[in-house]
Amino acid sequence: MGEDRGMTVTVLRLGHRPQRDKRLSTHLLLAARAFGATNAFYAGTKDIRMEEGISRIVEEWGGDFKVKYAESWRNVVKNWEGEIVHLTMYGLPVQEVASKIRENNEPKLVVVGGSKVPRDMYDLADWNVSVTTQPHSEVSALAIFLHMLFDGEELSRSFKGARLRINPSGHGKDVDVFSKD
Amino acid sequence: MGEDRGMTVTVLRLGHRPQRDKRLSTHLLLAARAFGATNAFYAGTKDIRMEEGISRIVEEWGGDFKVKYAESWRNVVKNWEGEIVHLTMYGLPVQEVASKIRENNEPKLVVVGGSKVPRDMYDLADWNVSVTTQPHSEVSALAIFLHMLFDGEELSRSFKGARLRINPSGHGKDVDVFSKD
Repeated sequence: MGEDRGMTVTVLRLGHRPQRDKRLSTHLLLAARAFGATNAFYAGTKDIRMEEGISRIVEEWGGDFKVKYAESWRNVVKNWEGEIVHLTMYGLPVQEVASKIRENNEPKLVVVGGSKVPRDMYDLADWNVSVTTQPHSEVSALAIFLHMLFDGEELSRSFKGARLRINPSGHGKDVDVFSKD
Repeated sequence: MGEDRGMTVTVLRLGHRPQRDKRLSTHLLLAARAFGATNAFYAGTKDIRMEEGISRIVEEWGGDFKVKYAESWRNVVKNWEGEIVHLTMYGLPVQEVASKIRENNEPKLVVVGGSKVPRDMYDLADWNVSVTTQPHSEVSALAIFLHMLFDGEELSRSFKGARLRINPSGHGKDVDVFSKD
């Protein structure tokens, strides 16, 4: 499927607050999985219920996407062996840099902020990348970035070991349900 | 800028619940604006604070994106003069239909569900469209759909009358601040 075969992406979500961010972080992590990331870290406050929610989805829909809590996001970043991409509305336009970032197969760490991103993140990143220069959402920014990084191939990915699989349909719902054992 | 010049997109968000959905709906509406929709409706429960939050962003960042509360989503759909696209994980793959949907300049209504979408929405839509067949987020689904509908042109849009404008930068924040009067 082209040049990005073998390139793995890990997402790092900064500053999670269980009360306020539970649904947004869940959507973000599900978008990470759906658009081809292989796993994710989140920093901020540990949130077992969110982790369990993601695990249940993976159980039903397949693949082996994993989420881990990171006590120190700086350690994840500083120990990363590969390239670091920080999504920020202040960065370089995704449409100008996505294909360059795709040029090598080094594992990518894609860092997605919460509301306040510490200043040093901008320096720790190999790439600061913006998805439009407008305010929107870390969920849409991540999805568009991964879509452009994987050049659309992620849209037709299949997930191994799924219990549920949708058959695309023009009008209605068509779902296969498989037994898991 | 190509064949979609003149095609307008309105987003309709179903089933908004102020307590539970405030931030997600806000992110969704901001994604609608950032990725080229001209305005939006939301149904469910009226939420003045959310509307005000969006207005403040438009005031700062420009353009004339507007959000209106729809007491009846069915009236918006049934009175729509143009094409109706319903984003659902059960629909036809966006990568197969986006260019067909772009073929005519009729105004598009893009319907984005809440948790439970009434069955008749699938029949009222001209297009039921899926962005992957995996669970993720209405925010990422909308962003990817609009990105593919506008064929990437939306990424470099500018917004008139902005007080704030970002100059893309590899390392740091570079923002112009304009006086509004």
